[in-house]
Amino acid sequence: MAAKIDLIPDGSVTSAAGFFAGGTYAGLKTQGDGVLDLGILLSERSATLAATFSTNRILSPSVTVSRERAERGSARAVVANSGCANCCVGDQGREDAVEMAALAARHVGVDPEDVLVASTGMIGVELPMALIRQHVGNVELTAEGGHDFARSIMTTDSHKKDLAVSVELDGRRVTVGGAAKGVGMIHPNMATMLCFIATDATAEQDFLSTALSEAVDLSFNMIDVDGDQSTNDTVLVLANGAAGGPAIQPGTAAAADFQEALTYVCTELAKELVRDGEGAQRLIEVQVSGAASESDARVAAREIASSSLVKAAVHGRDPNWGRIMMALGKSGAQMDESRIKLFINGIQIVHDGKAIPYSIDAVVGAMGGSEVTFGVELDIGDASARAWGCDLTEEYVTFNSAYST
Amino acid sequence: MAAKIDLIPDGSVTSAAGFFAGGTYAGLKTQGDGVLDLGILLSERSATLAATFSTNRILSPSVTVSRERAERGSARAVVANSGCANCCVGDQGREDAVEMAALAARHVGVDPEDVLVASTGMIGVELPMALIRQHVGNVELTAEGGHDFARSIMTTDSHKKDLAVSVELDGRRVTVGGAAKGVGMIHPNMATMLCFIATDATAEQDFLSTALSEAVDLSFNMIDVDGDQSTNDTVLVLANGAAGGPAIQPGTAAAADFQEALTYVCTELAKELVRDGEGAQRLIEVQVSGAASESDARVAAREIASSSLVKAAVHGRDPNWGRIMMALGKSGAQMDESRIKLFINGIQIVHDGKAIPYSIDAVVGAMGGSEVTFGVELDIGDASARAWGCDLTEEYVTFNSAYST
Repeated sequence: MAAKIDLIPDGSVTSAAGFFAGGTYAGLKTQGDGVLDLGILLSERSATLAATFSTNRILSPSVTVSRERAERGSARAVVANSGCANCCVGDQGREDAVEMAALAARHVGVDPEDVLVASTGMIGVELPMALIRQHVGNVELTAEGGHDFARSIMTTDSHKKDLAVSVELDGRRVTVGGAAKGVGMIHPNMATMLCFIATDATAEQDFLSTALSEAVDLSFNMIDVDGDQSTNDTVLVLANGAAGGPAIQPGTAAAADFQEALTYVCTELAKELVRDGEGAQRLIEVQVSGAASESDARVAAREIASSSLVKAAVHGRDPNWGRIMMALGKSGAQMDESRIKLFINGIQIVHDGKAIPYSIDAVVGAMGGSEVTFGVELDIGDASARAWGCDLTEEYVTFNSAYST
Repeated sequence: MAAKIDLIPDGSVTSAAGFFAGGTYAGLKTQGDGVLDLGILLSERSATLAATFSTNRILSPSVTVSRERAERGSARAVVANSGCANCCVGDQGREDAVEMAALAARHVGVDPEDVLVASTGMIGVELPMALIRQHVGNVELTAEGGHDFARSIMTTDSHKKDLAVSVELDGRRVTVGGAAKGVGMIHPNMATMLCFIATDATAEQDFLSTALSEAVDLSFNMIDVDGDQSTNDTVLVLANGAAGGPAIQPGTAAAADFQEALTYVCTELAKELVRDGEGAQRLIEVQVSGAASESDARVAAREIASSSLVKAAVHGRDPNWGRIMMALGKSGAQMDESRIKLFINGIQIVHDGKAIPYSIDAVVGAMGGSEVTFGVELDIGDASARAWGCDLTEEYVTFNSAYST
C-alpha cells in the first residue's frame, strides 16, 4: 500500500461518514446461518454518482434502470438483492426493478428516482416481489451495517468481501469503503460481479467518473476467472462530501491521492474476487513490463491471466512456460521473441526467448503457495501492466457442470 | 453431404491422383504400436499452393519458413514431424526447419525451396536433427501412404484424422483428400492444429487461396476447444491438376462444386478435431440463424461454442440456457432480446426471450448423446452460421494440469 493510505480495521461501505447500510433475509436464497439476500446502502445526503455496467447485449433490467438513473450523476441509495438476476424475464423485469427501487425509497424516505437497483443470481427467473415487498422494511440501516450489506449481495461467494481505507486530502481525512461479490460469470447463473463504493470525499461528477474509470481499468478490467461476462455487472461509487472541504480538483495532489485510495480499494476487492473464484486454489498475478505501449502491456497481461492452459498449469504447479509464450504471442502485443524474459515468482526461467537452466524443484516449490506471480519482461519499451487470474481446477468443472439440474 | 459430393471409402491425402505420402518412426515421440512421427506428402508434379498460418506473434520457425515459401504459390512436398514444435528455441529453429526441408527434398528428389515444413509437439525443445537426418530416408512414399502420413502428424490425438471426397467438375471426377491433427492449444505444448489437403483439381493460385479462405472460415475458424491458439497452426492445400482439364474458373458451377467439396473436407476434419478434444465427451454444434449480418451470426455462434460455462453445462447435461443467453449477449452481435428463440437438439426452450414450459427430462435426455445442438434464432435478419465446440470436463483439467512435470 502506498504510504499515504491507511487501511481501516474491519472497514466496510459504512466506514465513510454519512453512509448507512443493512441487509435482511427475504427468502430469495436458501436459508442458513447469517444468510442475507436483500440490502440497502444509503447516503444521508445526495451523493455524486459514477458507475460502470456490463457491456453484454443481454442485460438485466436492474442494470438498465440503474444505468438510466446514473445519467443524473447523483443518487441517495442502492438496493441490491442476491438469489435472482432479474434477467431474461421479459417486460416484467423492468417493472420489478422499478418497484424494488420504489419499495426501498419509501422505506428510507427518499425519491424513488434517487435509488439504484442491482440484482444477482439465477437468470430466467422473475424476482419474487411478494417476498421483497414483505421484507424490505426489515432492512435496518445503521452506520455499522456495512458488513451486513456486503453479506446480502453474496451468491456462491465463500465469504463477504469488503474493506475501507482513509487518506488525507488537503488536511482532511477522507474515507473510501467498498463491498463486492462474485466475479463475472464464474458463479454461473448466479451471474455477476457487483461492487459498491462509498466515500465521504467531495467530488464533482466528471472527476468521479474519470477516477472510477481509471480505477476499474486497473482492477476489475484486469481480472479473469473464466472469460465470461455477466448480464448484471455493476460497479458504482457514491461520493457524499460528508468529510467536508471543497470538491477535489483534477490534476492536484489531492486528486492523485484520492485516485490512489480508490484504485487500492478496487484492486484489493478485484483480487479478492479472483482468489475466491470457483474451485480456485491459487491467485495468479501477471506482471508485464518493457512493453511498447500501455495497451500492449494490458492485453498481454490479460491474455496470459485468461488462458485456460496457463490456469490449468498453475493448478498442477507446472512451470509450463511454453503456454505463457503461446498466450503472450496470441495477445498480438508488439514483441521481439529474442528479447523476452520470463520469471516465475522471481525465478528467471527464460532469457532472450529461450529456456535457461533453472531448478525445476525450486520453481515447482514456489508455485505451491497461494499466489503465483508470472513476470514477463518484453524489453522493447517502458509500459507495464498487471492482471490477475486464478487456477483452473477439476472443482471448477464439477461445480459448473452440475449447477442447475 | 450435398448430392454431388461422394465420400471415398477409406480416403486419405493420397486418394487424389498424383500424390504420394508416407511416414516413419524417427524417435521423436515415445515408441509404440503403429507410432509414426515423421511424414512426407509429395505431388508428382508442381502443385498450386494455398496456405493459412497461425496469427500468434510467437511462431515456430517451421511456420515462418513455410509462410515465406508459400508466397511462391506452388510447391512439390511437405515434410512434417510430431513430438517437437520447433518453437522458442532461438536461431537454431530456423536452421533446423530449413535443414529438415532440405533433407526431405533430397530424399524425394525435388528442389528444397519446393518443400514446406510443419512441426507439432513440445515448445522450447530443439528438433533432434540427428534423428531426422538418420530416419528421413526411411519414409517410403506410395500412393497408399496417406494414412501413414496422417498417423505421423498425431500428437495426443486418440486416432488419425483423414478422409477424401470426389466431385464431378465439367465431366471430370476430381478428388479432394485431407489429413489433420490436434486442435489449437488443446494438446498443450503438443501445440497445434495442422491440416494438409491434396487435390488433383486444376486451379490457379488466386482461386485456390480464395477457396481455402472460405473453407477455413466455415470450418477451422469456427471451432473452439479452449480458446487458445498455437504457435504452429498450418492449413494448406496442394492442387496438382492430375485429374486433367482446364483451371477452375471463379464464378462457374465447377467452382461452386469444388468449393463445396473443399469446405466439406475442412468441416469434417474440423469437427473431428473438436470431437477428439482433450477430455471431450460431446460435440457441441451451435446454429445461429436470423442474424442481421453474417459476421454477427459468426461471432454469436463462436462465442457460445467457446464459453467455458456453456461447455461445462453440456458436460453435465444441464440445459442451462441462461449461460447461452449470457454468451450470446457477450458476443456483441445485434439482437432484440424479446425475439430470441433457443432450441436444444430441436426442442424449443426459450421463446421471445423467455423460458417456455418444456420437459426437463426430454432435454436432459437429448443432451446425453455424443452431439448436442444449440439452435439460436435471432429473428432480425437472414444471416446464419455454425460453430463447434466440445464439452469441458474434469479430464481436460486433470490432463492439462499434469502435463509436462
